[in-house]
Amino acid sequence: MSLLVVGSVALDSVETPFGRRDDVLGGSGTYFAAAASLLTKVSVVGVIGEDFPLGDLEFLRRRGVDLDGLEKVPGKTFRWRGRYGFDLNIAETLETQLNVFEHFSPRLGAQARRAERIFLGNIDPELQIRVLDQAERPRLVCADTMNYWINSRRAELLKLLPRVDVLMVNDSEVRQLAGESNVMKAAHAAQRMGAKSVVIKRGEYGALLVTAEHRFFAPAFPLTDVVDPTGAGDSFAGGFLGLLDRLESGEPPALRQAAVMGSTIASFTVERFSLDRLRDLDLAEVRLRYDAFRHLVHFDALPDQVG
Amino acid sequence: MSLLVVGSVALDSVETPFGRRDDVLGGSGTYFAAAASLLTKVSVVGVIGEDFPLGDLEFLRRRGVDLDGLEKVPGKTFRWRGRYGFDLNIAETLETQLNVFEHFSPRLGAQARRAERIFLGNIDPELQIRVLDQAERPRLVCADTMNYWINSRRAELLKLLPRVDVLMVNDSEVRQLAGESNVMKAAHAAQRMGAKSVVIKRGEYGALLVTAEHRFFAPAFPLTDVVDPTGAGDSFAGGFLGLLDRLESGEPPALRQAAVMGSTIASFTVERFSLDRLRDLDLAEVRLRYDAFRHLVHFDALPDQVG
Repeated sequence: MSLLVVGSVALDSVETPFGRRDDVLGGSGTYFAAAASLLTKVSVVGVIGEDFPLGDLEFLRRRGVDLDGLEKVPGKTFRWRGRYGFDLNIAETLETQLNVFEHFSPRLGAQARRAERIFLGNIDPELQIRVLDQAERPRLVCADTMNYWINSRRAELLKLLPRVDVLMVNDSEVRQLAGESNVMKAAHAAQRMGAKSVVIKRGEYGALLVTAEHRFFAPAFPLTDVVDPTGAGDSFAGGFLGLLDRLESGEPPALRQAAVMGSTIASFTVERFSLDRLRDLDLAEVRLRYDAFRHLVHFDALPDQVG
Repeated sequence: MSLLVVGSVALDSVETPFGRRDDVLGGSGTYFAAAASLLTKVSVVGVIGEDFPLGDLEFLRRRGVDLDGLEKVPGKTFRWRGRYGFDLNIAETLETQLNVFEHFSPRLGAQARRAERIFLGNIDPELQIRVLDQAERPRLVCADTMNYWINSRRAELLKLLPRVDVLMVNDSEVRQLAGESNVMKAAHAAQRMGAKSVVIKRGEYGALLVTAEHRFFAPAFPLTDVVDPTGAGDSFAGGFLGLLDRLESGEPPALRQAAVMGSTIASFTVERFSLDRLRDLDLAEVRLRYDAFRHLVHFDALPDQVG
């Protein structure tokens, strides 16, 4: 068991219909590590500036997260400012300050290089490739990306995909990657580009897993209180890879459980701002909600009389 | 077993990225009856004009659908013209001609009055109430509605809801009805208004069933070929009530099976234009896809080691 995430550790300013927070803990690497560390040992590779409040990561350390790969460099921390309106599925980015992230080049230490499972957060595909070049023997690689890279770094992305076991994207990203409006066809196109499996994240509508031979649908948990959707996707990825690492498997039954675990942990994330809910979450609560998912989708076979 | 639908029998003109059809068979009552008649005996109450090609309904007669309640009156048949773009979830209405539907007042014959289960298609809530006033002993009433009635006939709708077992609406409709953006809260609000259960249809994302005590999520079947989404919602309703009538139950396990049956039949509807796919569909095909749904959502419990 060993899991590595390369991604952003950031300060977010977020406004939703339920309130606002300024310069609070955020970033794909942070959400991922907070989620995955409920299940397994995680190493984080990323970069922060001199202004970063390191105490905010203390809860990750207590959960055994290895932060040695989190470089502190001169300058300011990566910042994202965004807003959600009535439709919480849509984030409006108001400002992105790359700051220290602009010259980030991931360097893997001894432990990180030996990671068996790797999550490549949503960064330049060239950097994602550089991570894989340093990894010694990854057994499962999962990569996120976004429309910006699909447009501006297509060649690099196409070089990355054959090295990816699970491409994790949303509806519009997989459509854009494939130039195809039907998401199932788009997922198959991504597989032809080299990704072994594709997970399509659909926000409050759940996630679709497309493997070589199967399709699996994990709903999102129907919540009455969604306060801030930020970090849901990276929490999903953390739960997903965290469970695969814990189970030491990438087989279809484990991939299905992992998708539900991703949905489960993401459903906690969005109940509060920033990492406020993930910070206090424990595995017993997570197990309870995972079981509730089983009830949520259970239905009986048709009786023979119907036929 | 006896099921009644009151709804439109129409001529649709539809344009999608995959082609167009003019003046083809459509209408909520038609889609509903085509779906439900795979499972049970259906009576249709509605109205058509003198221009309606009655031969188009011959396949329904062959499936045992009772069309005695389909009045033919002077004038033109109800017509809808619409277009779907890249995002097949969104229908753009280009034209609605009420025609003979404008002065429609549903009249139930002897058989229709005795129906045990009733589907009130998306018509004026005042007319929906008039249907229930004529029904002798309905055991389960399911009603569709839309933003237009929620706005313009709110008082009548609020009078209807306490007589409804299952309110069947989409995301935006339940939100508007409740004045609440969170769909779970909105569903609970609709329950406080009197609807016993609520089914929220979410197009290609599936459907959510909210009963007094449970929530159930039925995904939509992930399809590679969606040609025309028209009628998906009414096919869903037809599969849903068709199965409940066949099982003679409105209990939670049957409601779950019914929601999956709705998703199953709707997934066939959208594979071709108009009722082209429903016309040739048989129950053996439906059963196969129902079973595929079971595989689509199946996942194992967490092993004890994770805890």
